[in-house]
Amino acid sequence: MAEQYRIALDAMGGDHGLSVVVPAALNALQQYQDLALILVGDETQINAALTQHKALSTPNLRIHHASQVVQMDESPAVALKNKKDSSMRVAINLVKTGEANAAVSAGNTGALMATARFVLKTLPGIDRPAICTAIPSMQGHTHVLDLGANVDSEAEHLYQFALMGSELVKAIDNKANPKVGLLNIGQEAIKGNEQVKAANALLQGCPLNYIGYVEGDDIYQGDVDVVVCDGFVGNVALKTSEGLAKMVSAQLKAGYSANLFTKLAALISMPVLKSFRRKFDPRRYNGASLLGLQGIVVKSHGGADSLAFANAIGIARSAVISNVPQRIHKQLESLHTQRQSA
Amino acid sequence: MAEQYRIALDAMGGDHGLSVVVPAALNALQQYQDLALILVGDETQINAALTQHKALSTPNLRIHHASQVVQMDESPAVALKNKKDSSMRVAINLVKTGEANAAVSAGNTGALMATARFVLKTLPGIDRPAICTAIPSMQGHTHVLDLGANVDSEAEHLYQFALMGSELVKAIDNKANPKVGLLNIGQEAIKGNEQVKAANALLQGCPLNYIGYVEGDDIYQGDVDVVVCDGFVGNVALKTSEGLAKMVSAQLKAGYSANLFTKLAALISMPVLKSFRRKFDPRRYNGASLLGLQGIVVKSHGGADSLAFANAIGIARSAVISNVPQRIHKQLESLHTQRQSA
Repeated sequence: MAEQYRIALDAMGGDHGLSVVVPAALNALQQYQDLALILVGDETQINAALTQHKALSTPNLRIHHASQVVQMDESPAVALKNKKDSSMRVAINLVKTGEANAAVSAGNTGALMATARFVLKTLPGIDRPAICTAIPSMQGHTHVLDLGANVDSEAEHLYQFALMGSELVKAIDNKANPKVGLLNIGQEAIKGNEQVKAANALLQGCPLNYIGYVEGDDIYQGDVDVVVCDGFVGNVALKTSEGLAKMVSAQLKAGYSANLFTKLAALISMPVLKSFRRKFDPRRYNGASLLGLQGIVVKSHGGADSLAFANAIGIARSAVISNVPQRIHKQLESLHTQRQSA
Repeated sequence: MAEQYRIALDAMGGDHGLSVVVPAALNALQQYQDLALILVGDETQINAALTQHKALSTPNLRIHHASQVVQMDESPAVALKNKKDSSMRVAINLVKTGEANAAVSAGNTGALMATARFVLKTLPGIDRPAICTAIPSMQGHTHVLDLGANVDSEAEHLYQFALMGSELVKAIDNKANPKVGLLNIGQEAIKGNEQVKAANALLQGCPLNYIGYVEGDDIYQGDVDVVVCDGFVGNVALKTSEGLAKMVSAQLKAGYSANLFTKLAALISMPVLKSFRRKFDPRRYNGASLLGLQGIVVKSHGGADSLAFANAIGIARSAVISNVPQRIHKQLESLHTQRQSA
């Protein structure tokens, strides 16, 4: 029998909970024959949702009961302390015990990171886990980390992010030697803050394919595979991009629906606009990896629909297949040895 | 005789120097009858350029010779020390002596900021000048600062940026009580870094119309007039936006030129695409204010064309008319008094 990849889904998390996670699970099972999914959450509600989808006896799909739900605005500390039987926590527990190879949740990022870190622990040599996602670029996509798990990152943390991002891209994108850049500000302006300068020095001495400083526009130019930055900066870059994309899309829509003539133009432009929309569809990029943990956890956007959530399941599956945490661990050990002998 | 606003132009700065600055000056003079412009730079070259434009005896346009040019990649320290007769430095000197009411340069940002600060000095109570520009939003535009003059900004600096941005918007946009937001990362993630938290506390106690934390996408949503952030973060947000805009534009272009049918669609879509392009034309937003100085200096994008550079001249003119430095100075004094009595 071929290998099966078991992924636990926080069925109650996110803005939409079961109404998104259940159809996403069914989609993913259709898409990948090697998947087994565990819906973690309120058994009665999950059964009801499955019944609604006529999917009660779907092969490779089972339910694991959890009595609590972490709210989207719940503080990480409160969730950790009071929600020990939450769908989020139990899904991660299943990774810890080996019953699942990965967990996917659309629940609140802070609580997910805190819980994953508490239950799974970080890899030896990793101080802080980071959040990493792919962003579409002119030439495919660029992985960016950290996207908000860490603020006030020190040089050593940025160095660890570089290493983790590089391993993720090697594993997921099958790139032998990913180009890693450190996000900085223009050559014109006063260059870099202290942490970035220090991280640049660390990275120049390491065996990663470090290409030096990059700027914000390089994320979209796509000449770099991994862009490393502090979580505050990465989160602002991501959110700013989301805002601009939304505005562009709204303005195009408004422009094309102005009058009969523009509506005709829209009709004729449909193939172009559709392929444009498809190319940058954020749902196709949904699924951020929590890197640096002793286990695989993927964060879906809270507002994800079932197509987007299924994409996050696909990302978790890829991470399982290529065993990302183990790869990061090995790379860390090898760098550590090199540093000590240097 | 009506009042005349005198603006010194660094005629040699930027990627294109005279070939952009001269036609931009001629455009601006046509557009604004109340302007007098001083072209600062190599007299022979400027005369040649004016001859080429058949504009040697243009009213309200004169030449002020300067023998040196600051290179685009020159370090601020070197420029300050060795380029005392540069077109950039001399243009700023004219502001200092009162011969000009403002200076505009497309030269390198670091050198411009360092020179402006050295020659004009900061306003009493301002530790660090900041770079501020308007960015198009769903509802008009949003002013963002700092865009790269300062990294590792402390809470007090962010507070000063808020005050300066608010005064600029009051003056330039005629808004009585601009909404000021502090850029932070999502509610979901671990909230804010130390400086942002401390700045939030400062801003909550001040008489600005402070609306609290905003996120990257709020810049484009446009529910806020002034977005305050550290220069590293602001620069990344700006460059990331530029990169995304470039990618979107390239992809739309590629989509519409794919085949005969899509080219036809482009033709029919022309009015929509043109108005879309016009709305987000970065040239219409060219011109960043260096705030916090005892004088008005506007930075044009290095690669600006003459339409863009003329826009930067327009921004300098508005700042002169509304006397932005004086307004910031008064506001600082009033807040200082309030703080002392509190």
